[in-house]
Amino acid sequence: MTVGKGGSAARAVDWLIAGLIVCNVVAVVFGTVDPLFTRYQAVFYTFELLSVAVFTAEYVLRVWSATAAEEYDHPVFGRLRFMTRPAVVIDLLAVAPFYLGTVVFASDLRVLRALRLFRFLRLFKLARYSQSVARFKRVAKRKTGDLTVAIAGTSLLLTLASSLMYFVEHDAQPEAFSSIPAALWWGVVTLTTVGYGDVYPVTPLGKLLGATVAVLGTGLVALPASILASGFIADDADPDRCPHCGRELD
Amino acid sequence: MTVGKGGSAARAVDWLIAGLIVCNVVAVVFGTVDPLFTRYQAVFYTFELLSVAVFTAEYVLRVWSATAAEEYDHPVFGRLRFMTRPAVVIDLLAVAPFYLGTVVFASDLRVLRALRLFRFLRLFKLARYSQSVARFKRVAKRKTGDLTVAIAGTSLLLTLASSLMYFVEHDAQPEAFSSIPAALWWGVVTLTTVGYGDVYPVTPLGKLLGATVAVLGTGLVALPASILASGFIADDADPDRCPHCGRELD
Amino acid sequence: MTVGKGGSAARAVDWLIAGLIVCNVVAVVFGTVDPLFTRYQAVFYTFELLSVAVFTAEYVLRVWSATAAEEYDHPVFGRLRFMTRPAVVIDLLAVAPFYLGTVVFASDLRVLRALRLFRFLRLFKLARYSQSVARFKRVAKRKTGDLTVAIAGTSLLLTLASSLMYFVEHDAQPEAFSSIPAALWWGVVTLTTVGYGDVYPVTPLGKLLGATVAVLGTGLVALPASILASGFIADDADPDRCPHCGRELD
Amino acid sequence: MTVGKGGSAARAVDWLIAGLIVCNVVAVVFGTVDPLFTRYQAVFYTFELLSVAVFTAEYVLRVWSATAAEEYDHPVFGRLRFMTRPAVVIDLLAVAPFYLGTVVFASDLRVLRALRLFRFLRLFKLARYSQSVARFKRVAKRKTGDLTVAIAGTSLLLTLASSLMYFVEHDAQPEAFSSIPAALWWGVVTLTTVGYGDVYPVTPLGKLLGATVAVLGTGLVALPASILASGFIADDADPDRCPHCGRELD
Repeated sequence: MTVGKGGSAARAVDWLIAGLIVCNVVAVVFGTVDPLFTRYQAVFYTFELLSVAVFTAEYVLRVWSATAAEEYDHPVFGRLRFMTRPAVVIDLLAVAPFYLGTVVFASDLRVLRALRLFRFLRLFKLARYSQSVARFKRVAKRKTGDLTVAIAGTSLLLTLASSLMYFVEHDAQPEAFSSIPAALWWGVVTLTTVGYGDVYPVTPLGKLLGATVAVLGTGLVALPASILASGFIADDADPDRCPHCGRELD
Repeated sequence: MTVGKGGSAARAVDWLIAGLIVCNVVAVVFGTVDPLFTRYQAVFYTFELLSVAVFTAEYVLRVWSATAAEEYDHPVFGRLRFMTRPAVVIDLLAVAPFYLGTVVFASDLRVLRALRLFRFLRLFKLARYSQSVARFKRVAKRKTGDLTVAIAGTSLLLTLASSLMYFVEHDAQPEAFSSIPAALWWGVVTLTTVGYGDVYPVTPLGKLLGATVAVLGTGLVALPASILASGFIADDADPDRCPHCGRELD
Repeated sequence: MTVGKGGSAARAVDWLIAGLIVCNVVAVVFGTVDPLFTRYQAVFYTFELLSVAVFTAEYVLRVWSATAAEEYDHPVFGRLRFMTRPAVVIDLLAVAPFYLGTVVFASDLRVLRALRLFRFLRLFKLARYSQSVARFKRVAKRKTGDLTVAIAGTSLLLTLASSLMYFVEHDAQPEAFSSIPAALWWGVVTLTTVGYGDVYPVTPLGKLLGATVAVLGTGLVALPASILASGFIADDADPDRCPHCGRELD
Repeated sequence: MTVGKGGSAARAVDWLIAGLIVCNVVAVVFGTVDPLFTRYQAVFYTFELLSVAVFTAEYVLRVWSATAAEEYDHPVFGRLRFMTRPAVVIDLLAVAPFYLGTVVFASDLRVLRALRLFRFLRLFKLARYSQSVARFKRVAKRKTGDLTVAIAGTSLLLTLASSLMYFVEHDAQPEAFSSIPAALWWGVVTLTTVGYGDVYPVTPLGKLLGATVAVLGTGLVALPASILASGFIADDADPDRCPHCGRELD
């Protein structure tokens, strides 16, 4: 969460903040369990105050010291420009609701809690420390075209199958298949092989169509898996460099 | 949607038409939501008229200008032969229901709407612009034999398992397992790991058989995934040359 | 279904018989749909008689001509030994129930029908004509060790998780988790991600355990897929022969 | 289960003990089926006594002969140190409950039975005889980073999606989505594509979110599959040599 030029001390602070964010996530999650919350209300409240204090201090210090970087060295406009960086905006969103909340949403505790979810987003910033995340990005980039076509084809198939299912099942189940968007819910649940069982075809023709969609669904699960597998393997092979001596291979 | 020799202008028209088709699909989907439809009936109707006008104009112009291609240069028979090309028939099916519909199905709005689904098919024609679609076709062609055997084996297993399940569960659940085709519905839902929960075995023997089928189901999901993965990898590796002598393979 | 030395005529007969078997499978499947059966009883019965006649004739002829092969050339014992070959026993099982059935099970039509499922097995014999089946066998053989360990590990995990779930959920749901074998049914349905919804944990501890098993389940679906994928790829690579000139590669 | 230096006789004993453990597992599993247990109580009890006798004898002999190994050659402390090895502690846990149980838990048969599950753990010790297990470990080690990131990313997504779903569905279904931990149960069941059907969104916004999670779920099933596949393939390809210069990689 430092501007990126920090040494091991800055990195230690990063990990401390990361730990605090994880604790915040846990607090948000368990703060919704009513018996727990009512019993340990004081603990939850104190921890929230402490977290906001730390996050606020960190935010103020980072904005203050932003001028150390050449590109933000103007005392006012540099800092303001720094504050518009997406990563810094997320940090503001993580604390702002607390201050606004006590004023604006004072009456609705749940909205206030929900806004605290913005803190989760800060965890994504840790990703840049990971070699594997870099690999995932390379694989995703290498296979963007294939994955896009797979997703587009699946969407088209899903819309077509759900529309047909609507026309087939609407008369037998006017509640479950009340419209094509309702049928799309069935389509997604079936194509992904989740199968809750809240909606399913009951007519023979609907079952035939449903069976076809379910079978195609296993293929559609197979498609991204095989595309990604070939991407990872191509990335492992990395034909451009020798893994031992680093020389470029022809 | 042009005959294929068009330049960038023709391609721009293609994408405009494609955009209009996507809007049509959205209109068909949301036109089935009764509160939306009754409220915006005029919008839906106007959009339908506009779409049919554009599609009709495009169809007439394409048939008219078909004679530009050498193979369709006879003023009457060339155009008629052009009209029998599958891609052109789809374009006719996309508008014909409107004209026929207002005459023939005037009383049944739902049939009319359903026929509009033919317009979805026009989207598939966009596929030829994509390199990834070409790759999917190559992989599918290369692995046709393996995939056919996988599908045939699965079908055989499915029929055998469902038939056995019928004989095992029919007495305990005469409604759910009323016949082998009914048991096939259970079989597909289980083998594909969808598992709606509308039908499942209740006897100990049936559960043993069902567990076996479920376990085999995970293998059957694995089979197409691994076949396709090996296909994508082989395709990545350039299949055109012999790795030994470097000569082109036919 | 010939002894294997037959020419194209023998192969044509094979495919004819195969077609007849497929029709028999279809007849068995739809013969269990009561409205269909009662209406077309005569058709089903005639077709059954015809099938048995053809299968019986084929069986008698094959046994009769078995002496043409050197290893079965004794007029009596050669034919008897030929009759004990598994592939020939299956052919007998496909017709015997009809003759026995009319005598022994005359009163129970359903047992008679069930025994007709043996005919399905004859379809498996067609597999030897397929190159892909040969490839599947090679891959399965190459990866036997890995797949065995994957299955053994899954079984062990399944038993352990289901036993724990029994001890966790038995008090809350004495019906659903009445014993460890009952919990195993839950375990299989969850690990394979089928998830019918007839049994699921309701206590917090049970849900925690169930969630862990569900997550491990996705890994267990991934394991055979990745093992098979590496097997297919190794088989494709087939480093022993040049795919163009057939010369052995070093 | 020997210290590892044993010959074929020691290995035969290992397999005998392994067989006895498998039988114990079967006994624990079927001992929970009440009708079976009450009918064959004597058999179950005798088998339990026999098993404990064999396991105890084996344990005592192994601890006694531990001094044969140089590192444990002190008559008292060597044996005590040997007893603290994890593999040896598991062997103690497999029998100790019987002796403690008859004293301490005499009144509660079920706790006693549950503790017998420790014997399952002894089966894991057989794994070291398998080449495939060694391969799985190599693949897991090679892909630890990728798998960790995949799991961390999934956990983050799961928490975020479930929290959002709680805020979206809480008002419509205050029972099913009573808190974020309750929503996490829905999240796991959906992301893993199990889909029991005990909890699912009912509001349009909840269904949109649920559909997104289900689709991402198929990708998340694909991720470990493709990571593992690339690991197996890399392992097949012998990772020890540089493909460029042929020198061994460290």
